[in-house]
Amino acid sequence: MSVRAVESFAEGKWHAPTGDVQEVRSAVTGEVVAETGSDGLDFAAMLAFARARGGALRKLTFHERAAILKALAQAIMARKEELYDLSFASGATRADSWIDIEGGAGTLFAYSSKGRRELPNQRLLIDGDAEILGKTGTFIGQHVYTSLQGAAVHINAFNFPIWGMLEKLGPALLAGVPAIVKPAQATGYIAEAAFRIMVESGVLPDGALQLVSGSAGDLLDHLTAQDVVAFTGSARTAMLLQRHPVIAREAVRFTAERDSLNASILGSDAEPGSPEFDLFVKEVVREMTVKAGQKCTAIRRALVPAGLVDAVQDAISSRLAKVTVGDPRAEGVRMGALASREQLDDVRGRVRELAKSSSIVFGDPDTVEAIGEHVANGAFMAPVLLRTDTPWDNDNVHEIEAFGPVSTLIPYNDIDDAIALANQGKGSLALSVMTHDPAVVQEVVLQAGAWHGRILFLDRDCAGESTGHGSPLPVLVHGSPGRAGGGEEMGGIRGVKHYMQRTALQGSPALLTKAIRQQLPGAPMDESAEHPFRLYFEEIEPGRGIATGARTVTLEDIEHFAHFTGDTFYAHMDEEAASKSPIFGGRVAHGYLILSFAAGLFVDPAPGPVLANYGLERLRFVKPIKPGDAMKATLTAKSKSLKTPEMGEVSWAIAVTNQNDELVATYDLLTMNAVRGSLTT
Amino acid sequence: MSVRAVESFAEGKWHAPTGDVQEVRSAVTGEVVAETGSDGLDFAAMLAFARARGGALRKLTFHERAAILKALAQAIMARKEELYDLSFASGATRADSWIDIEGGAGTLFAYSSKGRRELPNQRLLIDGDAEILGKTGTFIGQHVYTSLQGAAVHINAFNFPIWGMLEKLGPALLAGVPAIVKPAQATGYIAEAAFRIMVESGVLPDGALQLVSGSAGDLLDHLTAQDVVAFTGSARTAMLLQRHPVIAREAVRFTAERDSLNASILGSDAEPGSPEFDLFVKEVVREMTVKAGQKCTAIRRALVPAGLVDAVQDAISSRLAKVTVGDPRAEGVRMGALASREQLDDVRGRVRELAKSSSIVFGDPDTVEAIGEHVANGAFMAPVLLRTDTPWDNDNVHEIEAFGPVSTLIPYNDIDDAIALANQGKGSLALSVMTHDPAVVQEVVLQAGAWHGRILFLDRDCAGESTGHGSPLPVLVHGSPGRAGGGEEMGGIRGVKHYMQRTALQGSPALLTKAIRQQLPGAPMDESAEHPFRLYFEEIEPGRGIATGARTVTLEDIEHFAHFTGDTFYAHMDEEAASKSPIFGGRVAHGYLILSFAAGLFVDPAPGPVLANYGLERLRFVKPIKPGDAMKATLTAKSKSLKTPEMGEVSWAIAVTNQNDELVATYDLLTMNAVRGSLTT
Repeated sequence: MSVRAVESFAEGKWHAPTGDVQEVRSAVTGEVVAETGSDGLDFAAMLAFARARGGALRKLTFHERAAILKALAQAIMARKEELYDLSFASGATRADSWIDIEGGAGTLFAYSSKGRRELPNQRLLIDGDAEILGKTGTFIGQHVYTSLQGAAVHINAFNFPIWGMLEKLGPALLAGVPAIVKPAQATGYIAEAAFRIMVESGVLPDGALQLVSGSAGDLLDHLTAQDVVAFTGSARTAMLLQRHPVIAREAVRFTAERDSLNASILGSDAEPGSPEFDLFVKEVVREMTVKAGQKCTAIRRALVPAGLVDAVQDAISSRLAKVTVGDPRAEGVRMGALASREQLDDVRGRVRELAKSSSIVFGDPDTVEAIGEHVANGAFMAPVLLRTDTPWDNDNVHEIEAFGPVSTLIPYNDIDDAIALANQGKGSLALSVMTHDPAVVQEVVLQAGAWHGRILFLDRDCAGESTGHGSPLPVLVHGSPGRAGGGEEMGGIRGVKHYMQRTALQGSPALLTKAIRQQLPGAPMDESAEHPFRLYFEEIEPGRGIATGARTVTLEDIEHFAHFTGDTFYAHMDEEAASKSPIFGGRVAHGYLILSFAAGLFVDPAPGPVLANYGLERLRFVKPIKPGDAMKATLTAKSKSLKTPEMGEVSWAIAVTNQNDELVATYDLLTMNAVRGSLTT
Repeated sequence: MSVRAVESFAEGKWHAPTGDVQEVRSAVTGEVVAETGSDGLDFAAMLAFARARGGALRKLTFHERAAILKALAQAIMARKEELYDLSFASGATRADSWIDIEGGAGTLFAYSSKGRRELPNQRLLIDGDAEILGKTGTFIGQHVYTSLQGAAVHINAFNFPIWGMLEKLGPALLAGVPAIVKPAQATGYIAEAAFRIMVESGVLPDGALQLVSGSAGDLLDHLTAQDVVAFTGSARTAMLLQRHPVIAREAVRFTAERDSLNASILGSDAEPGSPEFDLFVKEVVREMTVKAGQKCTAIRRALVPAGLVDAVQDAISSRLAKVTVGDPRAEGVRMGALASREQLDDVRGRVRELAKSSSIVFGDPDTVEAIGEHVANGAFMAPVLLRTDTPWDNDNVHEIEAFGPVSTLIPYNDIDDAIALANQGKGSLALSVMTHDPAVVQEVVLQAGAWHGRILFLDRDCAGESTGHGSPLPVLVHGSPGRAGGGEEMGGIRGVKHYMQRTALQGSPALLTKAIRQQLPGAPMDESAEHPFRLYFEEIEPGRGIATGARTVTLEDIEHFAHFTGDTFYAHMDEEAASKSPIFGGRVAHGYLILSFAAGLFVDPAPGPVLANYGLERLRFVKPIKPGDAMKATLTAKSKSLKTPEMGEVSWAIAVTNQNDELVATYDLLTMNAVRGSLTT
């Protein structure tokens, strides 16, 4: 393998390392594989470039940005073999790199899909319901999210150079915020290769992405309130960053994902031979060995009912004995190397610390038989299982994260004890509990929830589809309080909002409706001659609507409807019983009769742009319709979002009232509407 | 007025000030009115007490906590005159204190109401929809919020000692988190009086509230990841706190509300004589004089179209000329004193700084005619209006907050210029725009949104009900990026979540459903002999349901329904047109017919615990029903929440399928169900 000059991408141009260049060695052979260095980069100019040019990204809609994410993911998948090839030098097996490469692309795909399905085809995101602020409704409030106008600075860890980059970029780019990525040095050459594929895809607006291969220099000194720093790495570095004077002065958003002493609990209900017992053993071994245990989410503490600890130790040990270590390209190797010799030294040192108060019951941190040629200088380590029988007198086991194939067995007395021990980690990214007992689950959620970002309950029913203890998923939040940094990433659209600002808007419904393009309560209806169901998607504006004539509902209507549908609920059919009801005080029309008659009043029957009524939201029956009441309805376009070039969703606010103009029912009707010219009929 | 010994309330007991006692002087007369000091308090023990005893609050449901908030608000309102009397010494007029006292109680009332209406009668809060994580649905994810297990530390500002305390306590207590309150020294005696009323109300669980009257000592040194620090005050102090090593090490949640150079923009559409012109003038004067301008949200920068700046200056000046200053108890006084002589010196100093690059066009910071007796040593100041004609060459006007009756007039060229100038404040709590032009509103939202926590658009339509530029509301977020601290408070239930932890749960639908008591997709239905509509509220468990028999839908049914309801949409009635539709491919049943027939299949008609179907949520029509199709439904209890002692809401998941078990429609049906024994029939 030749030595790669790992380049930076700044202000739209590639920059080869110059000046103070750092060598990066193969984790397998120890030979130099790459050189990095960011000397000469102008970090203030990079931030200014992101802010100035990155605005192009902000001007796109969520759906347009979602399309970019999909194209980026496709570009990576199309050239994934280049990345697999490169990744072996980091000690990763092909299975490890699958998480990094295809898991990374999968995260972009997931954000693309979420963006198209859950966000509107706009730049603005409405947050929650309008708040009526005055008695007569002329003054209202509405929260919205808009994109931050700065840059996202992503400082990534070495263990997953691609996934770690993309799980941060997906939400940031979908939010419309340009990013400056600073990979970790040990695997920065892999991140650079994936980054280059994205740049070469040509789908990114100018300024959307920049890359720092090397030190971040004085980058942080130039941050402002519109920037976001998202860091993954050690608690030590996270603290330095968080306490950076500019971050405090400018109140820069700062999120960290750092050390995490994750635990797994074997439920008190799980006997040897039970499915949950076996799942626990497999999961602990898997988390120790995948990526050689270099996962922020790996199980560092395995909590077991005191009576089962010997049985679990035997089962884990016999599985670990089969784990072969060596060159990830070599035949028969199950576990590769740590990312570097420095990492190896660090992990060995931490195992020695842990061993002061725990016993090593399997493996030896200093002895490994590595398979393969030229592996003498590699960063290999065999799995090490420790055990402590006095976890309440052992701070080390709850404090020291050995970032390698290392875990400690811990006995517990009862589930409260187990939860308290898990919480002793002072905040973790992932807790798992192998149990089939709902009472255990309930207790863990209430007592441990506040300490853990994600809790997996693994049982016989979900094991077949479980993604496992250690897998962060784009649709679920990743992050945790306390030691793990207090940050939160991903979680679907939740993660996008970390790059946007929530603002409360106040004003008159008419004015705010025009500005945010969503019909707000109290905004006027624009009733033109043409029925709104004759309008094509692009012609519909919030506020466009009709008021129908009235229809009197008779007792015969109610009885007829009851017999026709079979819904003979007493409130509609039994005068004596209905008159005793405090809610009805006599026979009333079915709610579904009101909906059906309302549709009869407002539906325009001929074929046209309305392709289908595909749903309904927020229906509330406010006041009953009694025999003799005359009902009428208004239908007002509320909001719309294009789904395909041919059609889009339209939400219509419906209000049904009676002869006294009292509100009877209110709901949002959802239709799919054609774009003009898209109909073949 | 006698000298009050301002006490602390620690570990359930009142502590009089001892040791290093500080004197607090009347803002009106300069005489000593109070003594404070927290020497001898054991802050580590206070935090431990909050964590240990405060758990009682966490064990209550949201509705039980909401009831406590209401009782606290009622207790304050019942004794409000004591608080008004006390507040005069802080320089506040009765109108100023109304904001503090009744605005504070109103915030608790609002949180009580929101808690009862928008939160379940449980301890756990479900966040968002379930995420299906596996192909067959045996593995799912669900986010939940649980209460943090530490203490809320509230460090408050001097200007609104009661409101400032209660706007933080409402969300924290509703979240189930005990609080330690540290008021500002200058007005701590007023906060202590309100705090005492709450303690004496007897409604608070032991450990829920503690008070530090004096220095916070080494309190921060003992914080952990489960604690929250919420600070309101100067940027200088906020930075010290944010950079505190324990806050960084433990990743303690920290939120700050600090300096804010709020702006108000007179829209480019507002001519002299227009309602918006007058509203602007009135609002600027109001914000300068209410609470003598000591509001975090006050208008410090008044942005005006260049051509109107003289007219605006005249109009504001002539109004300011009528503002009488003096002892707030004296007849005819409109504006009281600043909170202290120190504050007065500080504001005068800042006006001098501002005047280096702006001109004073009204008032004199060093001259005031104060009405009243014994006011010679009071902290009085007359309103001061400045003006700068070169705002882009004047950093001071965007940087220096004179926390008193001070504002600066600034001309702008066009709306983009106005927005850019507003954003020069680097993040503000409140921006207002007096405009009647939707295009201006849209531009401001998109370009200024990310810089401001709240934006008021004030026009002729909402002026009558507007709460004004400077009023934070409990239902809207209060906070802002950047200079104003990057924090966010209130915003209804949003503010409650700041005291809770979001956790992603993963597992099998059956297990998670039992634990969180909400039926999740894929969880089994428990079909017993008895129809679920015969169950009283307390007997209903998530999962309890029935599967109905099938009903064949005929073409006659469809035609009959169309003629009966009047809904003759072509998809139901016109075979030729319907067959051309890519969605239908032939005539199909009305969605409302499907709903109505489904009700006919699952409704149990006799009087019983189901009092009413009051609504429906999340209806989606997935696949059409064609003539000859046989539809059937399942109804499964999803979740429930008690509303009154007599009745509660139950949500039922309905799935309608066809003869091939394909999903036709899915929705949540909402019923009100009686508690056993509550029915009089």
